[in-house]
Amino acid sequence: MLERARHLDAADPLAGYRGRFEVPEGVIYLDGNSLGCLPKATPDRLAKVVRGEWGEGLIRSWNSADWITMPQRVGAKIAPLIGAQPHEVIAADSTSVNLFKLISAALALQESKGRPSRKTVLSEPGNFPTDLYMIDGLEKQGLAERRLAERASLLDALDGEVALLLLTHAHYKTGALFDMAALTRAAHDAGALVLWDLSHSVGAFPVHLNRCEADFAVGCGYKYLNGGPGAPAFAFVAECHHETLQQPLSGWMGHAAPFAFSDDYEPGAATDRLLCGTPPILGLAALEVGVDLIAQIGVDRLYGKSKALSEFFRQCLAEHGVDIDLVSPSDPAARGSQLSFRHENAYALSQALIARGVIGDFRDPDILRFGFAPAYLSFADIAEAARNLAEVLDSGEWHEEEFSRKAAVT
Amino acid sequence: MLERARHLDAADPLAGYRGRFEVPEGVIYLDGNSLGCLPKATPDRLAKVVRGEWGEGLIRSWNSADWITMPQRVGAKIAPLIGAQPHEVIAADSTSVNLFKLISAALALQESKGRPSRKTVLSEPGNFPTDLYMIDGLEKQGLAERRLAERASLLDALDGEVALLLLTHAHYKTGALFDMAALTRAAHDAGALVLWDLSHSVGAFPVHLNRCEADFAVGCGYKYLNGGPGAPAFAFVAECHHETLQQPLSGWMGHAAPFAFSDDYEPGAATDRLLCGTPPILGLAALEVGVDLIAQIGVDRLYGKSKALSEFFRQCLAEHGVDIDLVSPSDPAARGSQLSFRHENAYALSQALIARGVIGDFRDPDILRFGFAPAYLSFADIAEAARNLAEVLDSGEWHEEEFSRKAAVT
Repeated sequence: MLERARHLDAADPLAGYRGRFEVPEGVIYLDGNSLGCLPKATPDRLAKVVRGEWGEGLIRSWNSADWITMPQRVGAKIAPLIGAQPHEVIAADSTSVNLFKLISAALALQESKGRPSRKTVLSEPGNFPTDLYMIDGLEKQGLAERRLAERASLLDALDGEVALLLLTHAHYKTGALFDMAALTRAAHDAGALVLWDLSHSVGAFPVHLNRCEADFAVGCGYKYLNGGPGAPAFAFVAECHHETLQQPLSGWMGHAAPFAFSDDYEPGAATDRLLCGTPPILGLAALEVGVDLIAQIGVDRLYGKSKALSEFFRQCLAEHGVDIDLVSPSDPAARGSQLSFRHENAYALSQALIARGVIGDFRDPDILRFGFAPAYLSFADIAEAARNLAEVLDSGEWHEEEFSRKAAVT
Repeated sequence: MLERARHLDAADPLAGYRGRFEVPEGVIYLDGNSLGCLPKATPDRLAKVVRGEWGEGLIRSWNSADWITMPQRVGAKIAPLIGAQPHEVIAADSTSVNLFKLISAALALQESKGRPSRKTVLSEPGNFPTDLYMIDGLEKQGLAERRLAERASLLDALDGEVALLLLTHAHYKTGALFDMAALTRAAHDAGALVLWDLSHSVGAFPVHLNRCEADFAVGCGYKYLNGGPGAPAFAFVAECHHETLQQPLSGWMGHAAPFAFSDDYEPGAATDRLLCGTPPILGLAALEVGVDLIAQIGVDRLYGKSKALSEFFRQCLAEHGVDIDLVSPSDPAARGSQLSFRHENAYALSQALIARGVIGDFRDPDILRFGFAPAYLSFADIAEAARNLAEVLDSGEWHEEEFSRKAAVT
C-alpha cells in the first residue's frame, strides 16, 4: 500500500505544496478540518506586522500599512473560493457573531418585504451547535423562532412562517453535503431566505454561492483556510441585498464615516456595514497568508485531491480488512473533505491513534473523524493512517486505561 | 526645560520600563491612548505561540498550551487593574460586541426583576460613537430606546423608564472623567443599572468597579493595555448578576459544555457565558503580554506618573507662551491620561507635528489630542513635544498645503 501511495504522491501535481506548510515530524495530521496547519510564510508575515507595522509604524499603519481595509481585502480574496464577487464578502469577528448578524439581517429583510410575521428560522437537529445557539439568542430576544426538521423533512418544513433556512453546507460530524442549489431554490420558492455555513467547505472544495443564488453565508478562517487558532471568520451577502442590508451589531467600523465621530449611525456601503468593532489585525494578517496560499493552489485542484485522498483511505482500510461503520456518504461527491466512522469506543480509539502520532478527532458521543486537508497531506500519510487504525483495532491497545474517556476539550 | 525634564526622568521610578517597549527612534508618541506601543516581549511570545503551539502542537494546544482557558486567564489578569474579582472579567471579541452583549444583559435583567417596561438606555451626546451605535442596534431590533442627555442633565434624565446608564468613564475626546461612584449610586437609586466603558481608563489609572458597585463594564485591549491593533476587548459583570446573566450572542464557547455538541444552549458559569465564538488566540497572546507588563508596573504608580506628565506638558506650554484652548479638565484628578486642545486648524496642526515626529492625533472637528501613556513616556518626550507644538504654532508651517485637511482615517 505504501508503495502505491508513493506512486500516487509522485504523480500528485499538488505534492509540492506540502513544503509550504509546517507539518510536524512524526505526525499524520487528519485534523485540518478543525485547525489547519501553519503556512511557512505566516511567522515572517506576522513578525513584519508586529515589529514593523505595529512596533515602528504604530498608529500610522492604519493608513500606511492599509490595516483599515484589511477586512475588505481579505474578504475579496475569499470571494472567488466560494463563488462570490469581491465586494460581497468581508472578514470579521467570529463565525458565531457573523451568524447573529446575518440571521438578524434576514429577519429585517423579511420585514422590509412586508412579511414581518415570518419569524421562523429553520435548521436541522445536529447542525453545528453554534448555528443553533445563535438562533436561540434571537429567540430569547423574542425576535426569532427556532424550528428543527430532519434532513429528509426540510422541504416539508418550509412553510409560510419560515423567514430563513440556515444550514451547514458540509456537516461537521459526517461531512454530508447539502445540495446548495436545490435547497436554495426550494427556500426561495417558499418565500424564505437562505444562510449557508461554509465552515467545513471553504478552502477544501469549490462553492458556488452566486450560481446557487444564495442570500447569505458565513465561514471559518481556521480550518481549511489555515488562518490560525481562532482566526477571524467571514460573512457573505449577495449583492441584491446590499441596499437594504441591516444588522444590529452596528458598531463604529460599519459606519459610512467612522472618523466623523457622529452621534448617529449611518450604515456604510455594501458589506462594510457588517463590520462592528476595530478589526483584529494580527488575526487578519495570518488569515490573509492562509487564504493567499489556498487561492494559489486553487480550490478545483484541491477538490480533486481531496476526493482521491479519502477514497484511497477507504481502499487501504478495506485491504487491511477493517470493518468499521462509515457514517459519511460513500459517494465522494456527496461529502466534504472528511470521513467519519461510528464506534462505541471512538474516544479511546482516537486517543490511541494520537499516541501513535495519527491525529484525527473524536466527536461526541461515538464518532471518529478524519479530515483530509488536501493542501498538505500526502497519499503516504493516508496509507500510514489506515495501517495505524487497522493495528489499533486489531491490537486492542485502545483498551488501555490511559485512553479511557475523559472530558474531551477539542 | 529639557534640563528639568532630565532631572524628572532621573528621579522617575518607572523610567526603567521604557526599555520594555519598542519606542521608535525619532518619534515622540503621544497616541498610546489610540494604539499602545509594542512590548518588547510580544514578538517572542507570538513566535512561540505561532511556531510552537500552532505549528507543532496544532489542535493539541487547545489543551496542552491552555488556549481554551485564555479568555478567563487574561480576564482574571485585567480584573485587579479595574477593581474587580478575577471571575468577573473575561477577554473576548471587540468592545463594540461586548457592549451589545451587556446592554442586552441589562435589559434582560430589568425584565427578570419585573420591570420589562424599562427600555431606555441613557447616555450622553458625544460619547464614543460605537457606544451610541450599539444602543441604536438594539433600538432597531425594537428592544431599546436611546436617550441622550448632556453631562450636566444626566441625573435629571434618570427617570423610571431608564433600564441602563451607559457612559464612558474617561471621555475619548476631552479625557473628562465621570464620578463613577456618584453616578452609579444615582442610577441605582433610580432603579437603573450601569455599564461603564473603560476604554480610556484601563491601564492608565486605577478603576474601582466593585467599590463603586458597578454592574457592567467593557474596555479596550489596544490602548493603555498595549495588546496590539484590534486586540481582543474585555467585559466585566458584577458577581451579584452572574446567576441571572443572559445575553443573546449565545455562541458555543459560552455553553456549559461546548464539546457535548448539544442542540440546546445551556449557559456556562459566570462570565463564561459571555463567550461566543472560538477565542482569537494570537490576539489574546499579545494582549496577555501587555496586561502582564502593565500589572507589573502597577496602576497606582502609572497614575502618579500620568498626572505628572500631563501637568509638566502644561507647564512647558505655559513657559513657551503657548495660548491654546484646553478642553480637558484643568484638574488632573478630573481627567484621564490625556490633554486635548481646541483649534480651528487642529487637523493641519496634528499633521505638521507628525511630520516632526510628534505623534498625537486629531479628533473631528477641531480637537488636537495628546495621550500620555505613563508606561513608556519620559519627561524629556514631554518637553520636546511642547517645544515642537510651540514652534509649529509660531512658524505657521501648518499652513502648508501638505498638511491641509484630507479624509482622516485615524
